[in-house]
Amino acid sequence: MKTYTVEDPNDPLVADYLRLDDHLLRQERELPDGDMAGFFLAEGNQVIERGISSGYVLSTLLIDTSSKKPLPKGLPQSANILLCNEIVLTAISGRPYLRDPIGSFFRPPLPDAAAALKTAKTVVVTERVNNPTNMGALFRNACALGSDLVCLDPSSCDPMYRRAVRVSMGQVFSIKHVRLPLFPEGLRVLKSAGFALVALTPGNHARRVGDFCIGKDDPVALIIGAEGPGLTEETLQESDYQIRIPMDRNVDSLNVGTAAAVALYAIREARFS
Amino acid sequence: MKTYTVEDPNDPLVADYLRLDDHLLRQERELPDGDMAGFFLAEGNQVIERGISSGYVLSTLLIDTSSKKPLPKGLPQSANILLCNEIVLTAISGRPYLRDPIGSFFRPPLPDAAAALKTAKTVVVTERVNNPTNMGALFRNACALGSDLVCLDPSSCDPMYRRAVRVSMGQVFSIKHVRLPLFPEGLRVLKSAGFALVALTPGNHARRVGDFCIGKDDPVALIIGAEGPGLTEETLQESDYQIRIPMDRNVDSLNVGTAAAVALYAIREARFS
Repeated sequence: MKTYTVEDPNDPLVADYLRLDDHLLRQERELPDGDMAGFFLAEGNQVIERGISSGYVLSTLLIDTSSKKPLPKGLPQSANILLCNEIVLTAISGRPYLRDPIGSFFRPPLPDAAAALKTAKTVVVTERVNNPTNMGALFRNACALGSDLVCLDPSSCDPMYRRAVRVSMGQVFSIKHVRLPLFPEGLRVLKSAGFALVALTPGNHARRVGDFCIGKDDPVALIIGAEGPGLTEETLQESDYQIRIPMDRNVDSLNVGTAAAVALYAIREARFS
Repeated sequence: MKTYTVEDPNDPLVADYLRLDDHLLRQERELPDGDMAGFFLAEGNQVIERGISSGYVLSTLLIDTSSKKPLPKGLPQSANILLCNEIVLTAISGRPYLRDPIGSFFRPPLPDAAAALKTAKTVVVTERVNNPTNMGALFRNACALGSDLVCLDPSSCDPMYRRAVRVSMGQVFSIKHVRLPLFPEGLRVLKSAGFALVALTPGNHARRVGDFCIGKDDPVALIIGAEGPGLTEETLQESDYQIRIPMDRNVDSLNVGTAAAVALYAIREARFS
């Protein structure tokens, strides 16, 4: 490992970390045609360590020189450590009080959907889930409650975006995800692989999730839309079943991560009942 | 309704809205011995309307003069409308871009725990849940998934704090809450009222929540601790049952609102199975 002290916010060594306060710009830089397409950022020792132990390769680590915290464990020899004082850090990131270390990781290409589906049994499919906080919560819950894979429609946001990584507590590293280039047409890849397409919707015509029957090893894809608009009519039509979480007191919806948690819990229970 | 244009941030008319950027100060002001003990704030038309339609009385409404949004529906004749330009609003609140209207409501005294328990069947009890975002999510989920009442230990935060109210989508207005002045001793009020005390814990010795048996009308109190520390040993000892949400991939915990959602869902399913 080499250590560099960076004193100029325009130093190319810290280009990965510019303007962390501008979420739209950051997400654009990490798109497939952006200048950071090959990288993603992760903050905080626990999350960085989860990234490293899941096999992701750290490129650089940005640290406040005055930080008294220990370095994340397991740093690879190839990583460069970049030290900055608080003023330089703020100038780079646009954010005051950057207390946690931030790592820039190499971003591997996404696996092919058809290949990833071969080893999956419970899959979550997202449609228009474009809020990174919700995406992070969804991954954390998908990981805890028995999902093997997340399939993203083209308009769902990137789960490797820093905010999503953080909210997931690094669980985006524990569960694979793929991108379906067309939607809802892309659902046919799941259908061909034998998955039952189960749409989660608040509609009263949908079956209660607790009444959904499923064999222990049946492949199931749970399709979830953004809070508010929910799933599109085209996606509902493409699905094999519609299920709902019964709700009291005319509450109209749950947060998307919470809805995923309850539905995945119910699906897992149904497998073993 | 009277309308006032406020040009001086120190005008006593807007004292309720000072320093919205300082969460600790705000929470202190609204404590029982604070200068705002008799009030709570709610932001955004939907949440303000839910407060009004749930019977809470609006005292004043603070609005940006340049806002083109319609006023919240159902404003009482007794409410005062306070208009400020953006510069004055920022000086009052300490926050830029205050786009949504904010209302200051009169805060009614909390009901007595023993009285509130008489009409409740599924209760959530919180221990040390002191993050307003988590508290808001917990209320939203408790409301949607069949809880009738929330009992707060002395160290849980105030669900009527602005951030909690907002995250709950105004569902803090749909479900009653009470404060237990001693804890875990206060749990005995629930025991005397016939409630089974069910502690949610990640411990492996705890029973799977899906295996928990419960009659259709049995009174149940689900006790939930903060993410991280969880429930104290004293509270676990005071409880009648310990249940857990089975988790995969060594995920150590769920967000407290999400854990409440899954457990309440499972309890409601158990009532009807």
